[in-house]
Amino acid sequence: ALYRGLDSRDELVAKIRSLHGDALKKLALQCEDLFMAGQKDQLRFGVDSWSDFRLTSDRPCCEAGDAVYYQASYAKEPLSSYAVKICKSKAKESQQYYHSLAVRQSLAVHFNIQQDCGHFLAEVPLRLLPWEDPDTPGDEDEDGDGDEEGGGAEAGAGGGPGQQRSHVVVITREVPHLTVADFVRESSARHGRSPDAYERQVCLLLLQLCSGLEHLKPYHVTHCDLRLENLLLIRGRPEAEAGPARLLVSNFSQAKQKSRLAEPEALRDRSRLAPEILTATQYKKCDEFQTGILIYEMLHLANPFDENPGLKEREYTRADLPRIPCRSPYSWGLQQLAGCLLHPNPSERILISDAKGVLQCLLWGPRQDLFPSLGGPAGPRGAALQSWLDIKRTLLMVKFAEKALDRAGGVSLEDWLCAQYLAFATTDSLGGIVDILQQR
Amino acid sequence: ALYRGLDSRDELVAKIRSLHGDALKKLALQCEDLFMAGQKDQLRFGVDSWSDFRLTSDRPCCEAGDAVYYQASYAKEPLSSYAVKICKSKAKESQQYYHSLAVRQSLAVHFNIQQDCGHFLAEVPLRLLPWEDPDTPGDEDEDGDGDEEGGGAEAGAGGGPGQQRSHVVVITREVPHLTVADFVRESSARHGRSPDAYERQVCLLLLQLCSGLEHLKPYHVTHCDLRLENLLLIRGRPEAEAGPARLLVSNFSQAKQKSRLAEPEALRDRSRLAPEILTATQYKKCDEFQTGILIYEMLHLANPFDENPGLKEREYTRADLPRIPCRSPYSWGLQQLAGCLLHPNPSERILISDAKGVLQCLLWGPRQDLFPSLGGPAGPRGAALQSWLDIKRTLLMVKFAEKALDRAGGVSLEDWLCAQYLAFATTDSLGGIVDILQQR
Repeated sequence: ALYRGLDSRDELVAKIRSLHGDALKKLALQCEDLFMAGQKDQLRFGVDSWSDFRLTSDRPCCEAGDAVYYQASYAKEPLSSYAVKICKSKAKESQQYYHSLAVRQSLAVHFNIQQDCGHFLAEVPLRLLPWEDPDTPGDEDEDGDGDEEGGGAEAGAGGGPGQQRSHVVVITREVPHLTVADFVRESSARHGRSPDAYERQVCLLLLQLCSGLEHLKPYHVTHCDLRLENLLLIRGRPEAEAGPARLLVSNFSQAKQKSRLAEPEALRDRSRLAPEILTATQYKKCDEFQTGILIYEMLHLANPFDENPGLKEREYTRADLPRIPCRSPYSWGLQQLAGCLLHPNPSERILISDAKGVLQCLLWGPRQDLFPSLGGPAGPRGAALQSWLDIKRTLLMVKFAEKALDRAGGVSLEDWLCAQYLAFATTDSLGGIVDILQQR
Repeated sequence: ALYRGLDSRDELVAKIRSLHGDALKKLALQCEDLFMAGQKDQLRFGVDSWSDFRLTSDRPCCEAGDAVYYQASYAKEPLSSYAVKICKSKAKESQQYYHSLAVRQSLAVHFNIQQDCGHFLAEVPLRLLPWEDPDTPGDEDEDGDGDEEGGGAEAGAGGGPGQQRSHVVVITREVPHLTVADFVRESSARHGRSPDAYERQVCLLLLQLCSGLEHLKPYHVTHCDLRLENLLLIRGRPEAEAGPARLLVSNFSQAKQKSRLAEPEALRDRSRLAPEILTATQYKKCDEFQTGILIYEMLHLANPFDENPGLKEREYTRADLPRIPCRSPYSWGLQQLAGCLLHPNPSERILISDAKGVLQCLLWGPRQDLFPSLGGPAGPRGAALQSWLDIKRTLLMVKFAEKALDRAGGVSLEDWLCAQYLAFATTDSLGGIVDILQQR
């Protein structure tokens, strides 16, 4: 059947297209298995495992918004590395942490959402709590919840019991080495020196953020606290090509989840509420808005609403938002994206899935100079986009094929992200994104 | 420029075609580098290295027509493995070996031609010469040529000097584990049990033989002694998929080389000779003929000219050749190929390069059931073959792309051979082979 209709050029093109399409979908899934190797097996460390963890160093590997991370090894699995996350909140505030855990545990595993391999209240030596004042007495009377145990805290290799304090400890498999806040701070000079490379990297990080946030939608979860210091970066596998770091969304302490259980009862009351109030209580497009702010911040610009606190009070339009300087081929598109995400009216604000599409288009999509020839939605755009997609898929297949012989390199995170895009793009999805990018 | 002409379907197809074509040519070359890694660096071990070689075992790893092979390690490079080839001919016959070496050394390196990393006359302990009668006195008075030295023969770990004999020793990098004669002998039951797999493997071995022989042509070299016991098999790399073994053409002691130096003078004489005499003295199509015999022998059939010695005396036709039983999808094509190679008239005998094309076609080419729809050379065959090639190239690119993620497998020898075929095939070359296969 594969070789039937050999005389029709249309059938030939359709066949090559379906072979490439199927192959890329399969490759994208295989990449997922590769990049998430092991992560899909659920691990549940309890407080009884605490003594089997030993910190590789007393120096934190990363200081994030809500916690400090230490690299650690696990005695029963000496070749794997883990991170021990010590939450900054006091034991008496641990309720809030358990809220965020409950939210996170309702989600399926995702490459860009921090995963919890176990958590418990543990006695942590004071020297691992750099933010705490050693002179303030510990809350030794506090009792947290049932999980608590005055465990050995072997991890820190001792110290008198008086120098320990009770904190929520989380074990994670991914060891963060930076927050995006650190990354942005450290990259200021690089942004000036190589704006193309830096702004491309920003796009790759934002794409991963959107990918994680998109994953939350079907679970009706909104993060509500997207800040640079709540986004963690994980160094790539050493054998992979130098490429973008993996981004993890962390700190779900402010997350909102629309409970589906509560819905039937609440529905009657809600049916009498004005829509703008309903929207507000659902926080539905809150993450989109915060992503818009992150675009400014990642480009070393101030949050427009910090800079101009009056903005939110009046009915601002995108023209009122500060201009992003045009420093690279990505600046223009990021400006456009920020405008769409910061739309004051949530119903006109674009969805996180569209934001993802815009970033994919900026990274690998038809280039801006191609747009005019694509015409409007009514024109012959479909055929042109289809041809564009066919060529891009051919090029990506060639790229993957070359990696089969490339002992050094291997498939990079960027290859995977690109494969996801080209595998699932359609002329309709491509056209829709071109329209968003051309919005005025 | 890549995306111009997006609206023309013909241009789209042409673009995908040229991307695939270029990529496959590049992949085929990269495979060559991979499979011949190290082989292109010339090594020249002299007799002074002899004492640095140590046999891994006193049991030969392979007994071939002209020599016995022992696996050996080289003290200065303990991780590489080498084979020590001890030629069966006596030292006084070593002149013949040096003839074959001279022929081989005039050739560029090829994957299917045995390569010599050094050779010398050495004293070899008698127990490494299983074919020799220990009671026959050694030719201790013989002196071979200037290369000779009464070297330590450390390789054999000693023995009295009276138990040594002078033999030509060759160091090769490829360690043979079987001759094709052994392989055929051991596969008799398997041929009956899984005729498809066995006859496919025969095609892959014959393809490699043709590939090696084709390489000899520009050097005007004819092997002239193609027998199963002069073809060696090398086990594949352990990390590669189970696939066909690598075949090496060995024993060039009967090889003829048309000397280009002698040509200008000889040309005048030759210009007065009848063409059939010229053809006969050049041995030009001798390897083709012997390859035809090997087809029978590899399929567990007798050499037709052994079985019927009268055949060559009369003007036989292909109809007089014994029928090859039809046991697999390859039998029919191998019969056809044998007929073309055993043509009594050398000018009508097909070239080794065509034989290679036939084997490629049997292995990966358009299937026999597709031939009728291809029509004759005058019909719309070109377009149909081009489409067929486009689809096959797409499938091969997909296959290579999948290998990029396949940690276990990697690219196999068969993948490489297939890539060579599809990278360099044209509608004309495909059409020519289809014609040969349809010849009656």
